[in-house]
Amino acid sequence: MTNTPTVDSPSILSPAQFLGHWQGHRRLSRRVIEAFPEDQLFSFSIGGMRPFGVLAWEIHQVSELTLNGMRTGEWTMPQWRDGTSADRVELLRVWDELTARIQAELPTVDLNFFSQVHPLPWGEMSGWDAAIYTIDNEIHHRGQGYVFLRALGTEPPAFYER
Amino acid sequence: MTNTPTVDSPSILSPAQFLGHWQGHRRLSRRVIEAFPEDQLFSFSIGGMRPFGVLAWEIHQVSELTLNGMRTGEWTMPQWRDGTSADRVELLRVWDELTARIQAELPTVDLNFFSQVHPLPWGEMSGWDAAIYTIDNEIHHRGQGYVFLRALGTEPPAFYER
Repeated sequence: MTNTPTVDSPSILSPAQFLGHWQGHRRLSRRVIEAFPEDQLFSFSIGGMRPFGVLAWEIHQVSELTLNGMRTGEWTMPQWRDGTSADRVELLRVWDELTARIQAELPTVDLNFFSQVHPLPWGEMSGWDAAIYTIDNEIHHRGQGYVFLRALGTEPPAFYER
Repeated sequence: MTNTPTVDSPSILSPAQFLGHWQGHRRLSRRVIEAFPEDQLFSFSIGGMRPFGVLAWEIHQVSELTLNGMRTGEWTMPQWRDGTSADRVELLRVWDELTARIQAELPTVDLNFFSQVHPLPWGEMSGWDAAIYTIDNEIHHRGQGYVFLRALGTEPPAFYER
């Protein structure tokens, strides 16, 4: 249950790199939220999908769940419809609050978290799998937001800039 | 220039986990390639974007570049228009060949790769950044493919299944 480093388990990812990776994606996602025309963020859709503003709230809720689970070991299913609004200012305010929490709290997470197995609402998984899934889910939905922006005739932020 | 583990640099990601992470995404992307109607993979587009088949070739070429760079230290800009075709069978054949190469060759990569800085065609970056960028780029474009599928009325593969 420990991940005491040995020469057979070198570190290919440091906690500081993981924090930088997550925060870089959060900065890009924030720019995508801002890039939407005000009247389209919570309404524009393709193929019956959720509008990007709703996807952004999901990203927020999964990210919050993950940070809380890392800190406390508690994995409570988010109330997907609670605490969300069709208000970009409110979304960005909550987004920035969580960004600050991640910056302050991630460095305090017990590093054994990543190798241990945790009871997420959608099944047991290792801490690494839970952490990277959160970011992958963000990239996945943000990529969908890029298509919505293109369909709206808006140039999305550069993907490689973080 | 070494990443000899110490108690201050515990491993939060093992080489085997990284391999599993990459291969899981490759399996999902392969299912997305297969999910497209035959006549839409290399033609359907939204907002002037490249069709998903072309994006899949880009994913392949970036992945191949990254594996080659990991193995050899050579980072040659892909010839984006060479070696691609509007033929799904050919795409999947090349895809599967690279999947097998990743499985066989990634475990032989010097683990110092991840902490060292490398001259990629688009700038210097650490091995970790280069490796995870490859996967993030795959997730980003695949998410766009999901929108194309939805617009075509086709249910995409489940994102959480790998």
